[in-house]
Parts: sequence; C-alpha cells; structure tokens
Amino acid sequence: METKVWKFRGNIDLKTASVFSIARVIGDVKTNLNQSDQRPIIPLSIGDPSIFPCFRTAQVAEDAVVDALRSANFNGYAPKGGVLQPRRSLAEYLSCNLPYKLSPDDVYVTVGAKQAIDVVLSALRRPDANILLPKPGYPAYEALSVINRLEVRHFDLLQEKDWEVDLNGLQKLADDKTVAMVIINPGNPCGNVYTRDHLKKIAETARRLGILVIADEAYGHLTFGSDSFVPMGLFGNIAPVLTLGSLSKRWMVPGWRIGWIARSDPDGIFKEQGIVDCIKRSLITHTEAATFIQAALPQILEKTTDDFFVKTIDILRQDADMCYERLMEIPCFTCLQKPQGSLFLMVKLDLSQLQGINDDMEFCSKLAKEESVILLPGFVLRMKNWVRVTFGIEPSALEDGLARIKAFCLRHASKC
Amino acid sequence: METKVWKFRGNIDLKTASVFSIARVIGDVKTNLNQSDQRPIIPLSIGDPSIFPCFRTAQVAEDAVVDALRSANFNGYAPKGGVLQPRRSLAEYLSCNLPYKLSPDDVYVTVGAKQAIDVVLSALRRPDANILLPKPGYPAYEALSVINRLEVRHFDLLQEKDWEVDLNGLQKLADDKTVAMVIINPGNPCGNVYTRDHLKKIAETARRLGILVIADEAYGHLTFGSDSFVPMGLFGNIAPVLTLGSLSKRWMVPGWRIGWIARSDPDGIFKEQGIVDCIKRSLITHTEAATFIQAALPQILEKTTDDFFVKTIDILRQDADMCYERLMEIPCFTCLQKPQGSLFLMVKLDLSQLQGINDDMEFCSKLAKEESVILLPGFVLRMKNWVRVTFGIEPSALEDGLARIKAFCLRHASKC
Repeated sequence: METKVWKFRGNIDLKTASVFSIARVIGDVKTNLNQSDQRPIIPLSIGDPSIFPCFRTAQVAEDAVVDALRSANFNGYAPKGGVLQPRRSLAEYLSCNLPYKLSPDDVYVTVGAKQAIDVVLSALRRPDANILLPKPGYPAYEALSVINRLEVRHFDLLQEKDWEVDLNGLQKLADDKTVAMVIINPGNPCGNVYTRDHLKKIAETARRLGILVIADEAYGHLTFGSDSFVPMGLFGNIAPVLTLGSLSKRWMVPGWRIGWIARSDPDGIFKEQGIVDCIKRSLITHTEAATFIQAALPQILEKTTDDFFVKTIDILRQDADMCYERLMEIPCFTCLQKPQGSLFLMVKLDLSQLQGINDDMEFCSKLAKEESVILLPGFVLRMKNWVRVTFGIEPSALEDGLARIKAFCLRHASKC
Repeated sequence: METKVWKFRGNIDLKTASVFSIARVIGDVKTNLNQSDQRPIIPLSIGDPSIFPCFRTAQVAEDAVVDALRSANFNGYAPKGGVLQPRRSLAEYLSCNLPYKLSPDDVYVTVGAKQAIDVVLSALRRPDANILLPKPGYPAYEALSVINRLEVRHFDLLQEKDWEVDLNGLQKLADDKTVAMVIINPGNPCGNVYTRDHLKKIAETARRLGILVIADEAYGHLTFGSDSFVPMGLFGNIAPVLTLGSLSKRWMVPGWRIGWIARSDPDGIFKEQGIVDCIKRSLITHTEAATFIQAALPQILEKTTDDFFVKTIDILRQDADMCYERLMEIPCFTCLQKPQGSLFLMVKLDLSQLQGINDDMEFCSKLAKEESVILLPGFVLRMKNWVRVTFGIEPSALEDGLARIKAFCLRHASKC
C-alpha cells in the first residue's frame, strides 16, 4: 500500500479553551497522589456531594425517574428545548419567587447547566462581540466563550465587600460590542450570596450598558447564612435576564444532567432582539437531555418535601462552619468571610509562610502527594495563589481532610 | 429609568446551521396538520420506533438502568469521555467483529450520536479545512460543520449502484485541506447496506487522499437484506476510522441519549496526528451523558439476548417489504431498491404526474393537511423533489399510512 502523508491534525482553539478546565487541572493534581497511602482520598476540589450517603437525593426524585422509565412512554426523542410538561413545571417552580409568571415557552431544558451555558453563549455570538465575566468565576464560561468566539473581559468580585461585583470597574470594561455580563449567585467559587439590593444595582448597571444579564443560579437555594437566595429574575423588568439552573446541586444529582435556561424578560426584549430565535436555533445544534429524566421533573419539583432540603442545608451549614473555622486556624491561609451559600470558599495562600512551595499548583500537588487531599488551584479561576475548597462532603470526611491540610501546612511552615 | 438601546442581537452562523435541521423542517410540515381530522397522525418522518409497543426496548436494558439508579452510586459527575467500566464494555462490544481489540481508551461515551458528531467535528476544525459529506446524508453533519467552521463539500451516493459512494467524484473534490469523509452505514436516508468490498474501496480511497473516515454506524446491525452489517473499523489498518454509534436505534431508546466514538486505528495515526488530544479537549467543552445510564451499559450490552434483536429485525423486515411494495404501486414514485437496513428509504417524486404540487415541501405539506401523514421533504437532505419515508413503526400504522399516501397521490394525479 502507498504510504500517505495524513492531512488531518489537531487545532488551536480547543487548546486555548481546554486550559480553562477544572477537570483537566484536577486531573493534573491527582497525578501526584501517592498510591501507597492507605488513607482514603479526600476530594475537596469538585462540588459533587452525591457520592456521600448523607447527601443521597430525595427518594421521591429517584422514584419519579424510575416511574418515567418504567412507563416506556419516554424512550423516544424529546422535542428541542424539552418536553412540554416538564417545562410547565419548571416555569411554575421558577415563578414562585417572581412578581410575574414564567410560561413554559420561557423555559428550555438542557443537558445540565453546562450545556445551558453553551446554548446561551452560542446564541449570543457575533463578530467582535465581548462578554463580561466575573473574576474569580467558573472556567466553563471562559472555555465556551473561546469556542463561541466571544472576547472575554473580566470584572472583579470584591473580596472585602463580600465578593460583590465591582460595578465601577465593570462599566469601564463595557463598550458598544459588549453583549452580556455573567453573575454566579450563590457564588462559585466564593460561597457568597448577593443581597436583593446588590442584584438590583447589577440590573441597573446592565440596563445602563444595554446588555443582558446571564444569572447562573446553579446553586440556587443552597444558602445557610443570613441572606437568603434572591433570584436575579426579580429584576427582569430592569434588564432582561437569562437564568441558568439545574437539578444537580439542590437535588445532589449532577450525574442526571438536567439543567435549564429561563428567560426573565417581562418586557419582551429578548424576542425583539432576536435572541429567542437564536436560542431556538442553538438548541437545534445541541442534543437533548434524556427524555425520561426530563419527564420525571414534574414529580421531582412538586413532590420533594422540605425535610430533604432542610436536612441537606443543615449538613452544609455545619460543614461550612467547620471548614471556615478550621482553615482560619492555619496561619498561611486568609479567608475573609464564612461562606453563606453554594459549596465552596476561596482561601488565599501566604506563600511567605511556607517553605519550598512556590505557587498554588505546587501547594495542591504536594498536598495531594503527602496527604491524599485534593484542592483546586486558584489559577484556573484566575486567582493565582488562592485555592478553592469545597465543604460539600460528609462531615467526618471533611474533618479528616481539614486536619490533614493543617498538618501539611504546619509541616511546611517557614522556620523563621 | 433611562431608556436604553440594547446591544445584544442574534447572530448569523446559527441561521445557516439551523437550515439543515430535520426537526425544523418537520415542524414546518406539521403546521399544516388539520386539527379536525379524527384519524391518528402517522409519523413517517423521524426514525423513532420507540413510541410503538412492538418496539419496546429489552426488559434487561430497562432493568439495568433502574438498578444503576437505585444503587445511588451513579448520581455524581461522570469523568470526561465516560465512566471506565462502560467504556470497557463498549470496547468489548465493538471489537467482536474486528481483527484487533479496542481498548477502553479507544472509546468515548457521548450524549447520543449527535454529540459524537459535534465532538469529532470540533476536534477536526482548523482554518480552511474542508470535509466531504454524502449527498443524500444526515443534515446534522452540515449544521455542525458550519458551527465548527469546516467547509462542506458533497460527494454523491449513486442511486443506480445501491447508493454506493461515487469514489471518482469524491477524489476530485478532495484537496490539501480535506481532513475527513463521512459515510453512514447502514444508510440514512437510503436504507442501503455497504458490502465489505465497497467499504474496503472507501478505506483505500481515504488512504490515497490522506484523510480519515468518519463512519456513522448509528444504524449498525439494523439490517434485514442479503448483506449483513460490516463495521468500517475492519479497515482501520488501511485508513484510520472514527466510528460513531449509539444505543438509540438497535435498542430503540433514542431518548436515553447514549452514544459513542470509537477509534479504529491499529497503527496509532490519530495519536500521531494529535487527534486523540483534540478529542479529549473537545470532550472537556462538552457535557457528559447521564452517569447512571452510562453505568447500565455493561448489563445492556452483555445481557440483551438475541430474541430481542431477532424480533425487532423481523418486524422491520416486514415493514420494509410492505413499505417498498406499496410505494411501488404509486405511479408518481420511483424507488430503485428495497431497503436493506436502517429505518428509511428515499422515494423520488415525478411531479409531472401530480396536479398542483410543485415541489417536495408542497407534497409533504398537503399530505399532512389532507391525510395526517408526515414525511420528510428531501430538500433538507439536499435531494429536492424526493421524500424520505421511515418504515420503522408499528406495521398496522404503517399500512394505514401507506394507504393514505396512495389515496393522496391518486387524488392529485394529473388527468392526462
């Protein structure tokens, strides 16, 4: 056979996009794990409590999925944007804190919140458009902005102001080509919860700039501090809002891959600007969430009782308190606020207090190697020499992990 | 409040991409349905037999999904590329007709075959690259090529040669920027099944051109004619093959959204060319298939017994025969071959024999209106004045639908 020069090869975009990948960075950290350590690995890097028995999802949610599957009515293709009845239930569920009613047409079911991000960003992409992303934030926005050819501009979240948006800085970043800003509330990675007042100011700023707000509420309702969760859609009459959410966190089932996009836009600006059509077109080029899991949504949303939510929030509150207090005992860490929501907090490393550790990646790598504890290096969130810690795990495992982190830091403390 | 000029608006790429959408065109056809027709709608447009009781999936498959869900071990995030054990089972399943063994590393689990197409095309995209697609073909390739900025060039499938690839024409289309060619076998939309000999010639042509073969085997094993299904991977030693497949068709569960990509590349050319890295990076920007459905794969692949496959193939054979014979009785239709596989056949319209019908879209629209039968206009498959018919439905419903199509054509026959 003729020997050929093959003409296909890898590409560049993806290389840039995949830099911003939590999964990739955690994979790198894990390569340092010491296989001969007999202790269990403590995963404090990814927000996935589902693997711990105390966070097992509601029985009624599991039953709903089994019933939908066993009915054999939902083995076929779902319509683009989702099955109608689940959309109706979602509209109902998402309307309950709003001053107006969402209709099923305002809601689209997606394959988790991650696909929701892609659908929305691809609906927005235009030549030279830019998007304003929070720093620190969630790297999938960076990656999918690159894929969708949106220029990324970062605005700061202000640590000393409970990670509120630096609205002055944000306004300076925006120009005629800015299409949207993203907020994540409750906050990933900072564990903050925005007040109603701050959300209103965000909406007013967006209106002044003529841009829409993408409100990532993947951690919606996961709050355990003094401020309860306020949906951004409340201010849809000030600036139009695309709310992204999912079952993953509140129901502790990230593996079910059910997310949604909701349009909070009582004045119909999305329709007027052609965004509704673009979302529909974008959905055509994406695939659907599993039909029978979609079909379980009405039961899940209507029948899950408060005791499930109260129980998980109680454990998370206990976890958050323990995590914050124990980390505060460690001299090389700074963390200004106790987390109020989500599953995370951000900790600043003071490297001058550590010997032989030069940055966040090295910190996490050595910690994995010596203590079998996995943390997320902050650089992937554009916060070099910080680390993200999740406290959303079984309390006894968290306690163990925090003790190991402390031992590690003391062992590596500068002698001076 | 200040009145603003909103700065976000729809984009252009998506408009082009969504033209090539079966869902969109069927939606357009369905707007013609007559709500007062008391008869059931006969859906002969989409390949989704799952809604008919005679095509209900295997009990063991349903049980496997329920067991995985009830275990509560698979509610969390799946690793990128899929859970290991299912990948192992898939590698085993896909190796059984190959002269070499696939490893779990050669297999990636995707959200149905559609996401597999997107992952592969996005792994291939490079400035100025082009891809060779079959005409007629499956429109998702066109749409996702646009999204991934691959220039599309169409090669013909030869009707008079059982829809074989026009290899001479294909070679003339290829140039230095051609990265891949796509084949769909068993054929969608033509219902043909390629011989081993033809597949080998395709591989040799790809090798000569230095391009890879994307083998869409979504309808793999759904054959009921004289030629049985031969996987393209058999010729991976001639040209490297990316095989796309899914549970959707063979197990009649398109709503479960489980697909895969397999690398048939015994000489390691994908690794050498950086394609393996690109697929991994592309998977990072995509979301995963539901974890518990992935986890059911080993049981599904290993425990589904032949009687399930034999039963469904028997019904499909009966359906295909009936469909071909009845359509052949209709003067304005031409269809050279009885379908040998998949769920479809293509029929050419002789519009000169029909009064007041000017093209395929008008044919399908009037048929929907007058007879509540849905067919797919060929233009969306780049076959103007053809229609795609699926026979993969309950035989009695198919019989009813075919009788209505005949009545419609006779009623609209030219008087001359």
